[in-house]
Amino acid sequence: MLMSPEIRRALELALEAGESVRGTTSPNPPVGCAIVDSDGDIVGVGATQSPSGSGEHAEVMALRAAGDRARGASAVVTLEPCNHTGRTGPCTHALVDAGITAVYYATRDPNPLAAGGAEYLREHGVSATYLGLDVPALQFWLTGVRLGRPHVTVKMASTLDGFSAAEDGTSQWITGEKARQHAHRDRACRDAIVVGTGTVMADNPKLTARNPDGSLYPHQPQPVVIGRRPIPQGSHLDRDDVLRFESIDAALADLWERGLRDVLVEGGPRLVGSFLSAGLVDTIHSYLSPSILGGGLPAVNLGLERPTTLTDIRRFQIQHILRLGEDILIQSTVRATQKESGT
Amino acid sequence: MLMSPEIRRALELALEAGESVRGTTSPNPPVGCAIVDSDGDIVGVGATQSPSGSGEHAEVMALRAAGDRARGASAVVTLEPCNHTGRTGPCTHALVDAGITAVYYATRDPNPLAAGGAEYLREHGVSATYLGLDVPALQFWLTGVRLGRPHVTVKMASTLDGFSAAEDGTSQWITGEKARQHAHRDRACRDAIVVGTGTVMADNPKLTARNPDGSLYPHQPQPVVIGRRPIPQGSHLDRDDVLRFESIDAALADLWERGLRDVLVEGGPRLVGSFLSAGLVDTIHSYLSPSILGGGLPAVNLGLERPTTLTDIRRFQIQHILRLGEDILIQSTVRATQKESGT
Repeated sequence: MLMSPEIRRALELALEAGESVRGTTSPNPPVGCAIVDSDGDIVGVGATQSPSGSGEHAEVMALRAAGDRARGASAVVTLEPCNHTGRTGPCTHALVDAGITAVYYATRDPNPLAAGGAEYLREHGVSATYLGLDVPALQFWLTGVRLGRPHVTVKMASTLDGFSAAEDGTSQWITGEKARQHAHRDRACRDAIVVGTGTVMADNPKLTARNPDGSLYPHQPQPVVIGRRPIPQGSHLDRDDVLRFESIDAALADLWERGLRDVLVEGGPRLVGSFLSAGLVDTIHSYLSPSILGGGLPAVNLGLERPTTLTDIRRFQIQHILRLGEDILIQSTVRATQKESGT
Repeated sequence: MLMSPEIRRALELALEAGESVRGTTSPNPPVGCAIVDSDGDIVGVGATQSPSGSGEHAEVMALRAAGDRARGASAVVTLEPCNHTGRTGPCTHALVDAGITAVYYATRDPNPLAAGGAEYLREHGVSATYLGLDVPALQFWLTGVRLGRPHVTVKMASTLDGFSAAEDGTSQWITGEKARQHAHRDRACRDAIVVGTGTVMADNPKLTARNPDGSLYPHQPQPVVIGRRPIPQGSHLDRDDVLRFESIDAALADLWERGLRDVLVEGGPRLVGSFLSAGLVDTIHSYLSPSILGGGLPAVNLGLERPTTLTDIRRFQIQHILRLGEDILIQSTVRATQKESGT
């Protein structure tokens, strides 16, 4: 739909605000909100707060920032304002009480408990406009509402010919510095990182989100290990706070119960293959290095489930391509038909 | 360098003109030229003609189109104008005789026989400005002058996990319609297409450049088969005009002698592996489908030459990324250090 420049600008700020709190709001969605007055001035911006803090929703944070200037202003929100009382009161009431006259929301709230926000607003004289936009920060949360399990992103790093490591297992330097930095920033906005026991034994990963200087990002994902083999004593993941599961189903059910909604699977090839075979991969992040190995360890190992003919191929859809220094990152999501059949 | 809008516009037309004759000019380079008068009007555009036709150079074609309006005008050329008499006279003389007062050229002519064009122009009162730009259409020709062999592009089509075909060999539909159309257009501007005997037996390819309706492009590449095994009787390539060689070295030497400068290698994995091992790959075109096979035939097979550790990785550099419908094409070129050591 056509938006005025003022609303478009407010939308950008709302999207940015939502993106900025990714990884810190689960089980709530990372929403952003911006309030723009009748002169076109931005008078308040807010984002969902961590449940370990105030847990306030984005609309309330933005209204608080705007104060009296909210009266007669418009609110732009990345998600339809909630209409129910949970830990916090309904945002719809807060918007009406503050004197907001128009609300623009990018996505609908599919949660039956919280939905009905737009209707409530209209009944109270506030215009409510659905923008129908794709909000990347909300994708995993929407998956969760729809499927009742955490959103799963699989990370792969490989050469142009599809290898993740040489035959001797050396894999640390397939992609360059920029790609590594991106992967760490990405970890810093996930709820959990999952690896298999094979990867723990082969690579002894820390699974922390680190800045280039080695310091830790403020938000650290929950480390999770899936597999029957023990974690070797003294390895980085031989820690009490690491969650252990024997199966993918057990892991996803438990993470969901804990309120974790956005899970990143970092390998190895067999675990990735098992997620794929079970139809449990929503997004693939392929870090590709423009290089050729000609042999080595694959990024994916489907084991006995591997297709022998092309009709069994698993197709995804490219959403974004990023250049990261000498490498690229291809972000793909599962196609709707497969997604349904896989659940 | 800073260019006036008029010169920039003329440069774009010259680049387009050169691109439009790719595949039809070997052993001459596909050059483009545009002439812009002092009012900023484009008065003539030209491109190198096929040696099977007039063989005229781009400058001469553009001057002919401009006629008298060339007097006092500027010429923008993708390659430094030649200064020698081959089958046609020196372009430098033609430019001076036509009254051109300024020449802008995108790349230098490294051919010692033809070089010296800029110097000749300056000695005759014509300003000559080197723009120092990368001209994709000239890349293979420049490689030829530098290395004394045709430029080699390897085409690969694979899934995100690096497979070109399923285990049963089915490979026709890994990438989609847009990618196939692009691959056929690409064939239509190559001098030759090379496959191994294994690919002939497995896929029975035609190696023609076809429009979506099946009709042939005006320019067809020379089909070349490398390998010791015979071409099966009655297969599409069981034709007299197909060139046969037992080794890559023999093929490249013969193609060079025939004046063919731009060679596309379309597989299979062993032949691609042999080109890579010999350091004879200048460019890789990777058509990538956002899909996962989890097993199958690799795009590259280095055989016993495959690296067992990551220090032996062959690194390229991404030049362009194109989206082709649901797929992407990554164009990479060999890194300078490797290129030298490989020859």
